[in-house]
Amino acid sequence: MELLFVGAGVHGASSLPIGAIEHLKRSSKLYVDVYTSPWPEGELARLEGILGRSALRGTRALLEDGRAILDEAMKGTVAILCMGDPFTATTHVSLRLRAIERGIRVKTFYSSSILNAVFGETGLHCYKVGRVVSLIRAAPAALVSVYMAVKDCLQLGLHSLLLLEYNYDEGYHLSPSEGLKMLQELESSYKMGVFTDDRLVVVASRVGWPSQTIVAGPLRDLIRLEFGQPPHCMIFPGPLHFSEEEAMAKMLGSASAVKDAVAELISPSKAMVERTITKTLAALSEARRIAHESSVTNLEAIFENVEAYLSDARRFLMEGKPELALMEAGYAEGLLDAIRLQGTLKMTW
Amino acid sequence: MELLFVGAGVHGASSLPIGAIEHLKRSSKLYVDVYTSPWPEGELARLEGILGRSALRGTRALLEDGRAILDEAMKGTVAILCMGDPFTATTHVSLRLRAIERGIRVKTFYSSSILNAVFGETGLHCYKVGRVVSLIRAAPAALVSVYMAVKDCLQLGLHSLLLLEYNYDEGYHLSPSEGLKMLQELESSYKMGVFTDDRLVVVASRVGWPSQTIVAGPLRDLIRLEFGQPPHCMIFPGPLHFSEEEAMAKMLGSASAVKDAVAELISPSKAMVERTITKTLAALSEARRIAHESSVTNLEAIFENVEAYLSDARRFLMEGKPELALMEAGYAEGLLDAIRLQGTLKMTW
Repeated sequence: MELLFVGAGVHGASSLPIGAIEHLKRSSKLYVDVYTSPWPEGELARLEGILGRSALRGTRALLEDGRAILDEAMKGTVAILCMGDPFTATTHVSLRLRAIERGIRVKTFYSSSILNAVFGETGLHCYKVGRVVSLIRAAPAALVSVYMAVKDCLQLGLHSLLLLEYNYDEGYHLSPSEGLKMLQELESSYKMGVFTDDRLVVVASRVGWPSQTIVAGPLRDLIRLEFGQPPHCMIFPGPLHFSEEEAMAKMLGSASAVKDAVAELISPSKAMVERTITKTLAALSEARRIAHESSVTNLEAIFENVEAYLSDARRFLMEGKPELALMEAGYAEGLLDAIRLQGTLKMTW
Repeated sequence: MELLFVGAGVHGASSLPIGAIEHLKRSSKLYVDVYTSPWPEGELARLEGILGRSALRGTRALLEDGRAILDEAMKGTVAILCMGDPFTATTHVSLRLRAIERGIRVKTFYSSSILNAVFGETGLHCYKVGRVVSLIRAAPAALVSVYMAVKDCLQLGLHSLLLLEYNYDEGYHLSPSEGLKMLQELESSYKMGVFTDDRLVVVASRVGWPSQTIVAGPLRDLIRLEFGQPPHCMIFPGPLHFSEEEAMAKMLGSASAVKDAVAELISPSKAMVERTITKTLAALSEARRIAHESSVTNLEAIFENVEAYLSDARRFLMEGKPELALMEAGYAEGLLDAIRLQGTLKMTW
């Protein structure tokens, strides 16, 4: 009565944890998960050589349904071996919970995962990981959460990791250029400066495999490249620490591409405050002109306050206090607009 | 001319990647990093048994200075074996870059890391990792960045992972209760509702080891517990998906503790908008009373606008648009205050 999850790591057979070997040899059933991630060419055969036995293919139907596996685990030890780390795939997490419910003992051998390896191989700090997101082929409307996740990370100065879809059943994978095109389309709807031509992106393909390639540069350049076989992932780095810049230059040889790919994010608060300041200053100048022409003299206290609050709003923005800036800008606009609403001055804005 | 980094994973000797064994046996020098993370009892001896050779201890002085290692790697193959994943420690990243500079070939075997294993063992989604932060014993002023990192994650609905300090040279580790006390002190300064008594925290000790313990519950309970030997880490989860709640209940047996530990974060925008709405509504009611008593009748347009904008601010807040809410609340306040500033009504607020 045991269900064993074994991560084969990012390198394939050579990253198999040694402690798992005897368990895999002795298990009554051995499945290799070919569904959630592809295996490097020849690695399954190498693995079967190491274990001295052949492994069954764990397809989507088998793993997602899970009943056959759980039934077998009630009678003996069933082992599931998968690329990377076992619990990055929610399919495995769910299988594990159902095993616990049925009183089946669960044992796990963790191994290396794309999450560590891609940060190790790019020299980006894994401490700055902000989000791990799956990018699947979908209509823009279904990808809003991806857009917002990367935006949030960039705003907080963090890196986001996008794992690109791999679909074993349909023999399909999302290519980095197709993924980037989808993100570019999102940018044209949301316009917050997230997936602009200048945005730095790192495309990492087959990390840990002999054919690993990692390229960094602005979106406009990488969208044109072909990266070959899956698995693929992409990182959208937040602002780089100097040691990250140094590491990327030395490890990926992409110093100039990285330096050139600096795209500023457009914060909605900042845009909103600046628009209000511009609009209100124009209205203030108009109000002063009309007041002067109509010899209305009791509005100077209002005018001075409007100016003072707008200048406070600008200062708060620079000090990184967007909430206060928004409040002050709104207040200044209200002060001035009250004159119009009361009919004290006949003006439009 | 080779420098080899090998992650021994979270389980100790049994998570060593099989492909690394021959490389470790053949290397001219073999160091075990005892500085950046502690090893489980007996695992070093077990490892030396597997490799059939003894390993040198890689201390802080040796690894941080690095020159002796690089000089040796110029003449042969130097292997560095460490717990977990090699490049979570910045010491190793820096050594790697210096090796590349000197033309030394770098080879890496990745292995399991706390980052995957702790999400796997708690059932929390690794997709929702927001930040990985080191928590070291320090004065509150030095920990502001930790406070803000966890706050940002909670606001975005993400999980933050705090790795607790381990200091080999001084034989010291930060205990979870000491760490939580430091965070509680920060809360008393910053008061944003991050490290409150009710805040859900997961303390994970010795993940992957036979003596692994993971406990989830409100900060007030966990701060009183002893968790024994390092390594320790903590997760402050964002709002839980129902499948995460289910997993925590089944895997950690902490359903009620998790359900009870729901502390709402005090968003500065929300607090600011609500304060402004309350204050402005009170002033509006006062203004109406005075206007009525003094038979001033041309202010109804203003009053109605103030009400409408306050109600918009409340709606925007509920819709998750705090920027608009702040702007509208500020505007309403300004509209009303203009009456006082113009001297139209004699009132104070």
